Formats: sequence, structure tokens, C-alpha cells
Amino acid sequence: MTEFSIRRLDAGNDEFSSQLDQLLAWESVADQQVEAAVTEILSAVRARGDAAVIEYTNRFDRRQLQSAAGFCLDKPALQAALGRIPAASRAALEVAAQRVRDYHKHQLQSSWQYRESDGTVLGQQITPMEKVGIYVPGGKASYPSSVLMNAIPARVAGVDEVLMVVPSPDDHLSDLVLAAAAIADVDKVFTIGGAQAVAALAYGTETVSRVDKIVGPGNIFVASAKRAVFGQVAIDMIAGPSEILVICDGKTDPDWIAMDLLSQAEHDEQAQSILLSPDAEFLDAVADSLQKQLRELPREAIASRSLADRGALVLVRDIQQAIEVSNRVAPEHLEVSVDEPEQYLPLIRNAGAIFLGRHTAEALGDYCAGPNHVLPTSGTARFSSPLGVYDFQKRSSIIYCSPQGAETLGRVAATLARGEGLDAHARSAEYRVVSD
Amino acid sequence: MTEFSIRRLDAGNDEFSSQLDQLLAWESVADQQVEAAVTEILSAVRARGDAAVIEYTNRFDRRQLQSAAGFCLDKPALQAALGRIPAASRAALEVAAQRVRDYHKHQLQSSWQYRESDGTVLGQQITPMEKVGIYVPGGKASYPSSVLMNAIPARVAGVDEVLMVVPSPDDHLSDLVLAAAAIADVDKVFTIGGAQAVAALAYGTETVSRVDKIVGPGNIFVASAKRAVFGQVAIDMIAGPSEILVICDGKTDPDWIAMDLLSQAEHDEQAQSILLSPDAEFLDAVADSLQKQLRELPREAIASRSLADRGALVLVRDIQQAIEVSNRVAPEHLEVSVDEPEQYLPLIRNAGAIFLGRHTAEALGDYCAGPNHVLPTSGTARFSSPLGVYDFQKRSSIIYCSPQGAETLGRVAATLARGEGLDAHARSAEYRVVSD
Repeated sequence: MTEFSIRRLDAGNDEFSSQLDQLLAWESVADQQVEAAVTEILSAVRARGDAAVIEYTNRFDRRQLQSAAGFCLDKPALQAALGRIPAASRAALEVAAQRVRDYHKHQLQSSWQYRESDGTVLGQQITPMEKVGIYVPGGKASYPSSVLMNAIPARVAGVDEVLMVVPSPDDHLSDLVLAAAAIADVDKVFTIGGAQAVAALAYGTETVSRVDKIVGPGNIFVASAKRAVFGQVAIDMIAGPSEILVICDGKTDPDWIAMDLLSQAEHDEQAQSILLSPDAEFLDAVADSLQKQLRELPREAIASRSLADRGALVLVRDIQQAIEVSNRVAPEHLEVSVDEPEQYLPLIRNAGAIFLGRHTAEALGDYCAGPNHVLPTSGTARFSSPLGVYDFQKRSSIIYCSPQGAETLGRVAATLARGEGLDAHARSAEYRVVSD
Repeated sequence: MTEFSIRRLDAGNDEFSSQLDQLLAWESVADQQVEAAVTEILSAVRARGDAAVIEYTNRFDRRQLQSAAGFCLDKPALQAALGRIPAASRAALEVAAQRVRDYHKHQLQSSWQYRESDGTVLGQQITPMEKVGIYVPGGKASYPSSVLMNAIPARVAGVDEVLMVVPSPDDHLSDLVLAAAAIADVDKVFTIGGAQAVAALAYGTETVSRVDKIVGPGNIFVASAKRAVFGQVAIDMIAGPSEILVICDGKTDPDWIAMDLLSQAEHDEQAQSILLSPDAEFLDAVADSLQKQLRELPREAIASRSLADRGALVLVRDIQQAIEVSNRVAPEHLEVSVDEPEQYLPLIRNAGAIFLGRHTAEALGDYCAGPNHVLPTSGTARFSSPLGVYDFQKRSSIIYCSPQGAETLGRVAATLARGEGLDAHARSAEYRVVSD
């Protein structure tokens, strides 16, 4: 049994602002050795394709691949995995997939155009990306739900080909992960991981097609490789540890709220669980419940370390102040466990996903509520959004000038172009100004 | 006078695919010395704030700043610049700004919610970012149009505070740039640039507020600094050289098309101008016109170098083949100079902006047509979009379970959570399953 401790803070305290800064401080380790290794792997795969992928995979994942065929799984192989998993798991994955699909269809964007009085047409055309690659971690942390959350928005967006990479260390592969790939209609799975998998997707090899975007979480090598290929392909945000911030008026069962905090803390030792309440006795009750329930958890050691290092129970003046603190934290997950929670929505500026009401456990959002569980972490909800269909679509502007429109706009453009010293711009516009 | 040359290619040639790869090859120089300098500047500004910004600015821009007040311009200073510029320039900037504003309003996204049969509500809330920073290059390349194109979408999105940085080497500042900032309703201008300006915006100093996103083009130091702070703040894409791809049936005046190609080539020596036509004689006529018109341009040396190094006139079988080639290039600007160009829109997959018809010079899009001129370059239109209002908004998922919804979803979530070995997740969901 591990010692239980969790930080207690008071938002009314003068020191609170700097205490909060300290609590939130987190930065991914920018390790020189990791960067150097990743640079080497990226250039090897870029230069030598499959051969390099096979070498690194055999070395890092302790495999005995002879050829690229050894790391390819096609749709029948995925279907076979789907046939092997327990019926209850399959049913749950299918319900979750359908709900995720239904929700994400609301995110589809449409092309639009409008015509101006002189006949000029302006607009925006939406098209899906052609190919995307999904990184799925393998080994100890095997998350079929991540497969659904990454692949389904791409499919809803209309992406032509969805590829997935998942490492298979010591030839271990999760049937649940492969089954989820079957349900999410992934086209091909490559059982490779690490920087070598990111390189294969970014540059292409004889076997792996170059993709337009790489999404999905991974370890420090994967994150570092994604950062390095950013620009060559699109990537999603670099994910930090998972976080929850719960705002509670003190009237939800403290065991429920404690377990919500623990469900975040059990993810990893760096995960962050914060509770804000105006009710000091409720904070005490949650602390007691945390201590009690922690002992019943298989992942007790991880969760207790997370609570001790990064957790906090914070006394606030009222729910408004709690929301101000939350906007500053910009949490990945925000639970608003109060009466009539919808009244607070207009005040919430920064949050990845907002869970309203006492019955909405954050864990529902991780699996099957419908919205995506890939969410901005470490305060990046200030400027980024949940993974969505919009991440797999792109826009092209449309400009179609009528002769009259070209005349009016040509004069304006020529004036501005000459102001910037760009003569050919001005002349090109003026060619279409005929009535001078 | 410089020697004129431009590459001639034939898309029907066996070698064409590899010739095209060579033509498109371009990668930003990843210079170790630049990276090291940028790393030093970023950490100095992070540690010492304004003092470091002042030191670097005095050193690199040859200025004599004594305090941070020396690099701040408020709204009255911007209005004063607006009063100093020529009336024609002001009128043109105002027309351009209004058209850009009107177009971008079509990009505003709305929050949405829907209720399921058991009373569970799902949705997505859209909020603007709080603060954004716009980088505007100073010195020789002074582009007031860039100020409009970067600031107006942020304002339309509802961003609370729009900050701008523009270096002022040797105390030189463009009134046109400041006037554009006034018209675009920028809140504050800081006359600083380089990695030190990016650092100030990313980390904040005593004088410069930390922003949520940094947009706008810059030199290699700026691009490298933006890449380094990515994650700490959002950034736009790293811009490469500008490009145009023109598809013409041969029936547009060759002088017009030649000038369109030149308007791209005059930007810089690395800019790329490509013409695709099924009419070999038309390609000859455009080549002749390029040679002739080049000599009349103030920026002849730059444009001729760009055409020689990176330009191409390409014979294609027909317009369909031209579009296939264009989709592979994924050009920043695509002109479709043919009859009834709108019929080809559904075939166009990858392009930043599409200019339809013989009257739509690309230059109109640079200044005043309405759509943004900040567009994906170097093939990144495969996965990215013009700068837009959506770049300054973000989304939060909303989940509000009814007691019945929490019960149904709780069972599914618990099954999946146990499959992933996450017991606290399962228990947290099960607390809300009451009718067991």
C-alpha cells in the first residue's frame, strides 16, 4: 500500500496564482539523444525504405521479419481478429463505433459559393484528404478505443485510404486493437511502430504509401518523429499527459467524484486530476473517498503517484470563480457536476470536452458517448480542438471573376501591387481592365 | 539583361513523373547554426523578457531602444500613419479590407447541439481564441496586404486582442503597413522581429502578452522559432516559396498568361510558375511573351532566375490530364483559364486557391478579391487550407447525459474500460448505472 497524499489549495489565497502555475507546469522532455536517434531513423527510412523499417523493427521490437510482407495485415486478417474477441467486447465496440460515427457526421463541412452583383463568384470547396495514417501504441498500453476515435473521423470525412501502424513487440498484437480496426474500416495495418513507422508514413516506402496526415499518440520517439516530419505531412497535436478538472457544488456523491478523479489518475503517473468546489467539507469527503477507493484499484501505485505529484483539491468562492480558474487551466476534460450546468456553458472559454451534470462521468467520453477522446492537453485547449472530421478535410478558395468584376478589382489590386513594388502583379491585373 | 530560359516538358513522356518530382523538389534549409541561434534567443527571452528583446532588437535591427516603451505603438499611432499615406492607397486598402471581411464572414462556424431519444444532449461549442499575434516582415519586403489577410480573419472570429509584430531595421517602418494595421483594427503593434519577437509572443514578457497563436510569414529565423514554440502556442503552416500552376486551353491571350506566370516569378528566385496546356503552339507563344515582357519588369533579375530554375511549360494531352498533374502538384495558386471552368471544380482535389476563367488574374486574389492570400505552399495543399476564420476559433465537445443515457452508455464504457485494463474508468461509469 502506498502513502496517500493530495495537495489542498485555496483560490482565495494570494499565493494561489503562482501555486496554480506550479501545479500546471509540465513540459515534454526534449532529449538530445532521442532527437539524434530519431533524425537517424528518419533519414535511414527515407533513403532505404522497407529495408530500414525492417532493420529497426527487428532491433527495437525483437522481431525476425525477413520481408515487408511480414508487417502487413489486410482486411481479412482484421476480420479474423474480430471473430476471435469475446462477443460482449465486440458488441460494445460496435455500439461505440456507431455512436462515434453518428456524432462525427455532424462535423461534416460543406462547400459554399456566393455570387456578387457584378457576377463574380466567390466560394470555398471542401475536399477530403487522400490518405491518412493512424499511429496506435502497442505493447502494454493497448487501446482499441483509440483506433475508433482516430479512424472513424477520417472515414466520415471521406478519406480514400486509412492506414494504421501498431508496433508488435515480441510479436505480441492485441486482437481487440485489430478488431477495432476492422470495425472502423481501416484499409491496411502495418505492425510497425516508433520513429520508423512515422517515417514510413511520412515519406512512403515500397510497401507503405506516403500519407497526407499522421494522427495518434505515441511515446517520446513517436512524438519527436512527428514533430520532425511536420510540414512534410500534417500531424495532430503532440499529446501530453491526460487531465481532468472537476467543478462540483458539493452535492454529487463524493465517491462518484473521487472515482472520476481516479479514472484520470490511473492513466499514468503524470496524469492530472483537479477538483474545484466551494464546499470545504465536500473536499474533505472526496479526499477520504480517494484514499479509501484508491486501495481497491489494480493500478493503485500509478494513481496514488499521480494524485500526490499532480493532483489538487481546490477551495473556490463560487462556481463562477471555479470557471475562471478552469478557463486559465484550459483542461482536456472538464466536468461540471452541478445543478442546471448548461447555464455555465457561455462562460466556458477553454476546454477540450465539457461533461455536464452529475450523471456524465468523463469515462463515458473516453469510450462511447460519441465525441472524440483525442483532446487538447497541457493547456492547448486555448488554441486547439478535439480531433474531428475537420482534421481530415481541407479547403480551397474559389474565385471566378466576371469581366466587370475583374475590372473593378483589377484597379484596386494594381494600386496595392505598385505600393508593394510588385509590377508584374499590377500588369497582370490591368490586362483584365479593358475600359481604360 | 539576363539570359531567358524556361524548361519545356511533355506529360506524355515516360520520364515526366520523375521530371516533375525534380521540378517540385524544395525543402527549407534546416541550418544547424540557425537552430542554435534561435534556441539561445528563445531561452533568453523566456528567462529575461523585455530586457532580452531589447538587446536582440538593438543588435540585429541596429536600433537604440532604451526601454520597452520604444517598441510599442498604440492605436493612435496607427491612425496617424493612416493619415499620412496617399488617398488612393488608403481607398484601395479600405476596399480590400471590406471585401476580405465580407468573404471571411462566410467562414464563421456555429455551435450546435442535438438531443437523443433518452434525453442525452451532445454538441460542440465554438469559441474564439483570446489573443493572437501576427508576424509581419519589415525591411525591403513590406506587405500591407499581409496585415489585412492575417488580422481580419482573427477579428471576424471574435478574438479579444490582436497583436502585431513588425521589425523596424534602422528605425525604418512602412506607413502602409501601419495604416493597414489601423484598417484591420489591430490592437497593438510592437516594432520587433525575428526569433525574439516570436519568443515574446509565445512566452509573454512584461510588455508583450503571451498569445494563443502566432501567424504570418518570416525569414528562416522566424520560421525556425515558430517551429520551436509549436505546442506552446499554435502556429500557422511554415510557408515555402510562392507558386502558381496555370491550366490553359490555349485560347487566352498569351500575354495575359505570361504576365500571370511573371507575377509569381517576381516574388523571389525560388518562386515557381508552371503552365500546362494541350496546345504546343500556345506554349511557344507564352515562351516568346515571357521573354519579351520580362525585360519590361523592374524585378527582371529575380523573375528570370525563378523561371529558369523552377519554371516549366508543360504539354498535356487534355485538360483532364492537366488536372491530374495539378492534383499531384497541389499548387498554392491554380488558374483554370478555359471555357466553362466551373465544370472542372469537382475534379480538383488539392489546391490552395482556384482562379476560374480568363478574367481571374491570380493577383486579384493577392489583394482584394476577398479570399485569403495566406495559402498552403510546397504541396501542403494536400492537407492544409487557406488561413481563415476557423484558424482563430476552437471547438469544445459537449456531453450531457440523462440518467437513462448514463445507464446505457455506462455499461458499454465499463466493458471497454475493463478490456483496456482501466478499472477506475469502469467503476466511475458504473456508479451512474443504478438499475442493476
